[in-house]
Amino acid sequence: MDIDALVARITDEVMQELNRKGVSAKPSYNPAPIAKEQHHCCGGCGGHGGCGSVCTASTTGECSGQGSCTSLIPDKVQAVIDAGADRVTNGLGTKITGRMVADMIDHTLLKADATRDDILKLCAEARENRFASVCVNPGWVSTAADALRGSGVKVCTVIGFPLGATTSFTKANETRDAIANGADEVDLVINIGALKNHQDELVENDIREVVHAAGGRLVKAIIEAAMLSDEEVVRSCRLARNAGVDFVKTSTGFGPGGATAHHVALMRQTVGRNIGVKASGGIRDFETAAEMIKAGATRIGASASIKIMKGGN
Amino acid sequence: MDIDALVARITDEVMQELNRKGVSAKPSYNPAPIAKEQHHCCGGCGGHGGCGSVCTASTTGECSGQGSCTSLIPDKVQAVIDAGADRVTNGLGTKITGRMVADMIDHTLLKADATRDDILKLCAEARENRFASVCVNPGWVSTAADALRGSGVKVCTVIGFPLGATTSFTKANETRDAIANGADEVDLVINIGALKNHQDELVENDIREVVHAAGGRLVKAIIEAAMLSDEEVVRSCRLARNAGVDFVKTSTGFGPGGATAHHVALMRQTVGRNIGVKASGGIRDFETAAEMIKAGATRIGASASIKIMKGGN
Repeated sequence: MDIDALVARITDEVMQELNRKGVSAKPSYNPAPIAKEQHHCCGGCGGHGGCGSVCTASTTGECSGQGSCTSLIPDKVQAVIDAGADRVTNGLGTKITGRMVADMIDHTLLKADATRDDILKLCAEARENRFASVCVNPGWVSTAADALRGSGVKVCTVIGFPLGATTSFTKANETRDAIANGADEVDLVINIGALKNHQDELVENDIREVVHAAGGRLVKAIIEAAMLSDEEVVRSCRLARNAGVDFVKTSTGFGPGGATAHHVALMRQTVGRNIGVKASGGIRDFETAAEMIKAGATRIGASASIKIMKGGN
Repeated sequence: MDIDALVARITDEVMQELNRKGVSAKPSYNPAPIAKEQHHCCGGCGGHGGCGSVCTASTTGECSGQGSCTSLIPDKVQAVIDAGADRVTNGLGTKITGRMVADMIDHTLLKADATRDDILKLCAEARENRFASVCVNPGWVSTAADALRGSGVKVCTVIGFPLGATTSFTKANETRDAIANGADEVDLVINIGALKNHQDELVENDIREVVHAAGGRLVKAIIEAAMLSDEEVVRSCRLARNAGVDFVKTSTGFGPGGATAHHVALMRQTVGRNIGVKASGGIRDFETAAEMIKAGATRIGASASIKIMKGGN
């Protein structure tokens, strides 16, 4: 079994158990209240709230308004966050450490002007600190694969990055090329414009083509959450899950915002226990990384990885 | 003959003529002085200044220091800018108008979350105002091609955008796909990291593969000038010219800065008279567009195209 899927599954088992026990520890941060007007019913509940998804019966008219589904998301997200927050220092002894975070880090350098020396330094740091992977642009995959051979550190790259606005044909070809060059994992940017157009079939097929092209390698779908409403976060995660991804990922790091605990929790709640959640973008210290893990993240994308790791020692 | 090549050729002929006549009109703007320390000898002159390129004999030690090549660029750039500035209102009556600028505009929408309605609006505006082209992400090329059929407005798209850090294989495939979908022009981001590594052959071949894949369609090489030293601007333009591009282009609009008159003039000086220069990134009014044209630009990439055009009426 893939180690990440295993970690995700264990994480979710613990969360489920904590939820069953009715744990309601106060979270260590205070997410801003979510404006009701931003939400839309997912449609899956038939307006009865059974979908456990986002709904605002009173504002959108898309829901039957029977009461139980109104403003469901804020409470649910909060419960997930609460459970995660509790997990950090609960009786099971799963306190988050620097080493634990390091095992989850995709050590990342995606700047357009990165040089060969920059990439080699990134790989040396990843090898020394036993990060999960390095995450580099496709043009550097073969260099990283050579540098990391035998280290156990994976090579991750990005597809359709960072706009996600190229064709499925190009994304699939780029994926095959990356794997031929030595990539173990691919982080794909979904078609955000099509998502906003409600072209769900197009979005899902776009992701599916990359999953097929990846031929069993790990695929993470980047949803660029800072550009999305909560309804769109939920919908994109469902489409990604249906398309067969291994992870959903918050951000490219080139968009209007990075990872937030709210989005991580919402994504975790949506994809369930068998899919990982990668938090990325703006994670520059241990406390922020820990906050993401508490909210449900099982992988962290970061450049300041060494600083993050040391902050937890 | 392609209309853009024609415009570029006429522009250059006028500039040459003005230079021959020793026109030295004061430019209408005042470019910041260029720090000598930023420049490096191109090597092509053997240190004698004959290359007409960038050189700082006294600071880099790369030049024989025979005097004539020291700080050549600032003067040359200034001369080009001066000639351009004069062209605007000189005796030939080539005053820049809103209509003239409109004919040079690639009406651009490259945001990740652009929707179908946004693209259709862009195309309608381009058709109505007879812009040179619309510039959209590859995923929208077929939509734009359908919307613009019979209008005379070209469909331009972007390749390896905006980081330029994918492989040549992927860039060439993306180009073929874009042309199959209806693209008339492709704006390719060069491999910036390889340029900084001095892997000139890689950079040139990367561009050449796209030129070949484009099969005679117009190719513009985006150098992302704000990330480059003057030496790198000159070197990238030479590599692009060698690879057979039709245009060099300043910026993606997603980098650390947009077009500047200094970069446009430096690029124009480097590529000579038979290649176009596209200024893009941060051009939001007529005055800025006119400044770019004065400096040597023959195409303008912009989103605020209607405002720009109206500002010149």
